Amino acid sequence: MRFDKRKNDEIRTVRITRNYLKYPHGSVLIEFGDTKVICTAIVEEKVPQFLKGSGQGWITAEYNMLPGANAQRKQRDITKLKLDGRSAEIQRLVGRSLRSVTQLEKLGERTIWIDCDVIQADGGTRVASITGSYIALYDAISYLINAELLKENPIQYHMAAVSVGIVDNEPMVDLCYAEDSKAIADMNVVMTEQGNYIEIQATGEARPITEVEMDQLLLMSKNAIMQIIQIQKQVLELKS
Amino acid sequence: MRFDKRKNDEIRTVRITRNYLKYPHGSVLIEFGDTKVICTAIVEEKVPQFLKGSGQGWITAEYNMLPGANAQRKQRDITKLKLDGRSAEIQRLVGRSLRSVTQLEKLGERTIWIDCDVIQADGGTRVASITGSYIALYDAISYLINAELLKENPIQYHMAAVSVGIVDNEPMVDLCYAEDSKAIADMNVVMTEQGNYIEIQATGEARPITEVEMDQLLLMSKNAIMQIIQIQKQVLELKS
Amino acid sequence: MRFDKRKNDEIRTVRITRNYLKYPHGSVLIEFGDTKVICTAIVEEKVPQFLKGSGQGWITAEYNMLPGANAQRKQRDITKLKLDGRSAEIQRLVGRSLRSVTQLEKLGERTIWIDCDVIQADGGTRVASITGSYIALYDAISYLINAELLKENPIQYHMAAVSVGIVDNEPMVDLCYAEDSKAIADMNVVMTEQGNYIEIQATGEARPITEVEMDQLLLMSKNAIMQIIQIQKQVLELKS
Amino acid sequence: MRFDKRKNDEIRTVRITRNYLKYPHGSVLIEFGDTKVICTAIVEEKVPQFLKGSGQGWITAEYNMLPGANAQRKQRDITKLKLDGRSAEIQRLVGRSLRSVTQLEKLGERTIWIDCDVIQADGGTRVASITGSYIALYDAISYLINAELLKENPIQYHMAAVSVGIVDNEPMVDLCYAEDSKAIADMNVVMTEQGNYIEIQATGEARPITEVEMDQLLLMSKNAIMQIIQIQKQVLELKS
Amino acid sequence: MRFDKRKNDEIRTVRITRNYLKYPHGSVLIEFGDTKVICTAIVEEKVPQFLKGSGQGWITAEYNMLPGANAQRKQRDITKLKLDGRSAEIQRLVGRSLRSVTQLEKLGERTIWIDCDVIQADGGTRVASITGSYIALYDAISYLINAELLKENPIQYHMAAVSVGIVDNEPMVDLCYAEDSKAIADMNVVMTEQGNYIEIQATGEARPITEVEMDQLLLMSKNAIMQIIQIQKQVLELKS
Amino acid sequence: MRFDKRKNDEIRTVRITRNYLKYPHGSVLIEFGDTKVICTAIVEEKVPQFLKGSGQGWITAEYNMLPGANAQRKQRDITKLKLDGRSAEIQRLVGRSLRSVTQLEKLGERTIWIDCDVIQADGGTRVASITGSYIALYDAISYLINAELLKENPIQYHMAAVSVGIVDNEPMVDLCYAEDSKAIADMNVVMTEQGNYIEIQATGEARPITEVEMDQLLLMSKNAIMQIIQIQKQVLELKS
Repeated sequence: MRFDKRKNDEIRTVRITRNYLKYPHGSVLIEFGDTKVICTAIVEEKVPQFLKGSGQGWITAEYNMLPGANAQRKQRDITKLKLDGRSAEIQRLVGRSLRSVTQLEKLGERTIWIDCDVIQADGGTRVASITGSYIALYDAISYLINAELLKENPIQYHMAAVSVGIVDNEPMVDLCYAEDSKAIADMNVVMTEQGNYIEIQATGEARPITEVEMDQLLLMSKNAIMQIIQIQKQVLELKS
Repeated sequence: MRFDKRKNDEIRTVRITRNYLKYPHGSVLIEFGDTKVICTAIVEEKVPQFLKGSGQGWITAEYNMLPGANAQRKQRDITKLKLDGRSAEIQRLVGRSLRSVTQLEKLGERTIWIDCDVIQADGGTRVASITGSYIALYDAISYLINAELLKENPIQYHMAAVSVGIVDNEPMVDLCYAEDSKAIADMNVVMTEQGNYIEIQATGEARPITEVEMDQLLLMSKNAIMQIIQIQKQVLELKS
Repeated sequence: MRFDKRKNDEIRTVRITRNYLKYPHGSVLIEFGDTKVICTAIVEEKVPQFLKGSGQGWITAEYNMLPGANAQRKQRDITKLKLDGRSAEIQRLVGRSLRSVTQLEKLGERTIWIDCDVIQADGGTRVASITGSYIALYDAISYLINAELLKENPIQYHMAAVSVGIVDNEPMVDLCYAEDSKAIADMNVVMTEQGNYIEIQATGEARPITEVEMDQLLLMSKNAIMQIIQIQKQVLELKS
Repeated sequence: MRFDKRKNDEIRTVRITRNYLKYPHGSVLIEFGDTKVICTAIVEEKVPQFLKGSGQGWITAEYNMLPGANAQRKQRDITKLKLDGRSAEIQRLVGRSLRSVTQLEKLGERTIWIDCDVIQADGGTRVASITGSYIALYDAISYLINAELLKENPIQYHMAAVSVGIVDNEPMVDLCYAEDSKAIADMNVVMTEQGNYIEIQATGEARPITEVEMDQLLLMSKNAIMQIIQIQKQVLELKS
Repeated sequence: MRFDKRKNDEIRTVRITRNYLKYPHGSVLIEFGDTKVICTAIVEEKVPQFLKGSGQGWITAEYNMLPGANAQRKQRDITKLKLDGRSAEIQRLVGRSLRSVTQLEKLGERTIWIDCDVIQADGGTRVASITGSYIALYDAISYLINAELLKENPIQYHMAAVSVGIVDNEPMVDLCYAEDSKAIADMNVVMTEQGNYIEIQATGEARPITEVEMDQLLLMSKNAIMQIIQIQKQVLELKS
Repeated sequence: MRFDKRKNDEIRTVRITRNYLKYPHGSVLIEFGDTKVICTAIVEEKVPQFLKGSGQGWITAEYNMLPGANAQRKQRDITKLKLDGRSAEIQRLVGRSLRSVTQLEKLGERTIWIDCDVIQADGGTRVASITGSYIALYDAISYLINAELLKENPIQYHMAAVSVGIVDNEPMVDLCYAEDSKAIADMNVVMTEQGNYIEIQATGEARPITEVEMDQLLLMSKNAIMQIIQIQKQVLELKS
């Protein structure tokens, strides 16, 4: 049995608080158990240099952890004058994932800035960030549609993300920090409601992953993501 | 009458949520109306170079705004590779204020790291940061005492902070953003329960401040701070 | 009696050398005793982004200490890739003070760059910087008027600054370094010729400041500033 | 048929030049077609802070592109004072991959620095970097064994990496730049000689990847990696 | 006799490989013995701000060493967030040297970016960089002429560079690292085919250089440069 | 005749003010005409990492221009987060020059920090910096000898520096800015009292320098340096 009495294929409680802040066009507090991330989506009426005149929009993401989010205080990036390498990797993942479900050519020449600020970290901060940012993005798009700045919704697919991993030689879903820190392998999966893959990042930390394990992990992540997408749709008051 | 129907000498609702996060030794969500700041206090068992071997402790503070805290997205410091000048000024103020009510020689050779992260800004973020950090510091000190790492409480005075300003030629307390942005002058006051000054920062923005106005502002801030200290003491379950 | 035989309410000799350098539109060497600061004012015919098209001008200040200005060599900011926090705080103070006596809308869309470089530090470098920069600004404005680039003088008030503090429980004016380093409290006051406050920054370093002390310090600073403004006016060959 | 007449499951010519430079303990020029990367491995007899006293070693990687490696000149990181986000992601991948085939506890308290400098980029630079670095690492380990600084080889598995992707709705292996830039999806796979996964990074760029496609891509990458490992073993003069 | 059996006035084998890379307009691998530098020249159809509208072009150079180029691994500049001081000095020398043989007003409003990346360092990297960059520049100019973007060749003089120095009190040419590291004095000379000086940088490391020695060094460098220019002209298939 | 009526071989008035500042061990204001540089020498009782335990000392230099030193305001390095390339080159030159006249093994394990801050620039700031720093270094060494921290003077040679150049095809000494900005070639020479070369940096800006011109420039610089060394020795109250 797992650390917190969950079954291997059981996700933690996922809570999504919409309209968490008053200024951003979309803002969400997302919780995967004790992991808590503030995700905001802010519309800016211009695009990066390489898209000027293209008629196409852009979605970009930034990810950060507050100093008190972990058991050990995390030094701020600005103190070291360097963006944390892990943050760089994660924010690229968040941005790519959101862009891949959005028809950027239907967004118009504007940028949606996604900000993921982890206020408490207990494993799975990157998948919580993707799952929460999707809702913030959805709300920012709704704002654009309501304000008649957009006619058509450029989002093509519902999507969510989850972590899976091998702990004590068993595949498990939605690892908390205590599990993650002793995982043999871990994997982050981003998937559409249709069960297609947006992103897979699999890493054999302590040893390589066999094909059989890979199949188990992919299946387990799919089931979990389908559940999380239902939670998202309830929060968005959409039919499941 | 004021923007939000308050009287000139009336503060906004102040809410303090203790133990807001699970890892830091002290952590608080403080709200002055719509202004919301996460304040944490984390103990580190070492001191800066200049205090090594002195037997004395240190308190240092960092202040930051989340990108979505304002009406306009705020670029992260790391993007510009520069600590925001305003943040630099504020975090020095927070650190000085907390140090001045603490007997550092009784803290032992350890540092208490204070982190103030503004998640929503509606005026008065620096005074909310000081007021909230005081509670986080108090809880971190209590942790040290409970863990028998400290015998005596090094905190000497209860203290809180408030902003005052001159808006439409009238002195007002606890300015929200709409008031602050059109203030003729503004002032931040940090004061002990005994009514003594820890810090005053007064600025004549649009015109200099007369002596009569200065007296009014100082009196108004004193009354407000006494109210806020009572709220702090209730939260700390101390006799008022 | 004080370290250098001054009375508590006695300022050090203030010397102001105008036209100290040949290129800037205004340049001053100001001395408060052994504290020596080069203050320059340079006109640039453009404004920061947020003022473009506003018809309004801007005044901005930078403050720096030469490595040999103190008893201990000060590492250059560029070596650490960080603007010193204290410098950040001071240059914001200098800029705010000068802007608050100037009608920026009468300056035209141009920026006046103020640079304060401390070549020798013996306490009071920030107030010397403000006092000296005022003269450099005055000369740069005169240049603009003489060059017929400005019709009307946008400076509204004469002003100067001084430090006061509590040393050995006595209020004193214009602290030198030896006094400053053992001060219980210190305060910097920027004031107009009319006796109105432009800036107050008061800090209880070792203990809070009582109301009685605050009154003494404010009175003492007022008297000192009135003397310094007379010195400024003599240097500018204006009627006192 | 593909751009360069290859079949979909056909890799480009892979060339590995060992002992490419005279100073590093291991150094390789690896070519995947026109993609050329210099990979070096340098032993340093100390470990990062977090491993001091652990008896364990470390492998860390850095990745960089020369300005002239691409059709458009790439600005150096130092000019922007920021490590390129893509480079940050890749060098973390290279480091993780090499560490996961090495028993770090058998390496002793020393660090092996891997440097991948791309001198010409035509797609697949990250998989070429991993594949070439493996040989450089192997040679640095051999140096340690020959110098009797190590008794046992800490490398557990032979490994290599390849890219696969979906271009014009067809799965293809070892994409060159012209293919990569129009790929619907791309995936980088790092695998051991035993056919187990060390890393998978899959991205649906233009649309999500179906399960069927995922299976095809995984199979195709496996076959390619087995060929590349044979090339590595020939270069190392090992039995295949 | 010298370390590698050369006579005092004998240069190492100089090899120049043109068209070393496929993307840049000019690209060269230059070798002075074991010193190996990749030099590229890339045309950009714009000029720095200070030349806009001048009708004049610009040539600028960057110099860098790969981490594995030396016996001891060289930390990347981006890790320290600072351009290495020696690199800064060298790249300014390379840029000045190339500009001084080129009529920039005949280049048109375009910039030629020169990149010198040292892949192996055995003394004389700066003179190899200048000598190789000249060929890369020549080829980039030829590209512009062939593409009919330029009518006239703006290069005025053939030129090359060499190092000389005093080792064991004897003047020597083209010092390798082992000689350079014990040199009493060293000098880098850049000279035209006509025997005129473009740059001299002479440094008395261990003691000052006498006038007699200076004359010897200048003569020795002249003879060497004449030989190197012949090699350049052969590579360019020009009459010597 | 020259701009300021000097003859071609005539230097500007050189003024050296010793003990210019009260804290540094050596401090000088040096003036070459309107060029004014503050040079300080500060002793620190430790050495850089690479000299620890060697028994040898070190001399290092930093060079900077104040923003108002030139006709156009110079942005501070910290604003751009980059040490100016020209400053980097100059401070390396200053450091090398001072080290080459000093027996570092006789200095003991201590560093002498040289700081050159240009307060007004009118050509020749680097040679003024070297010439002035020599006096500051001399005074810092005298302080060490007087404090009985050194027994023997490690300075071996008196030295000074001057600029020469070709303007309107005529060789001239000690160029002011107006001359420097139109010079065909310029050269900085650092020389000992014995007439031996410490450093030569010659650059053909607009065209290469002929051998005849080189000889003229070297002779002219030698005569000038001999005069400047006499001025230094008078200031130091030494026999000439």
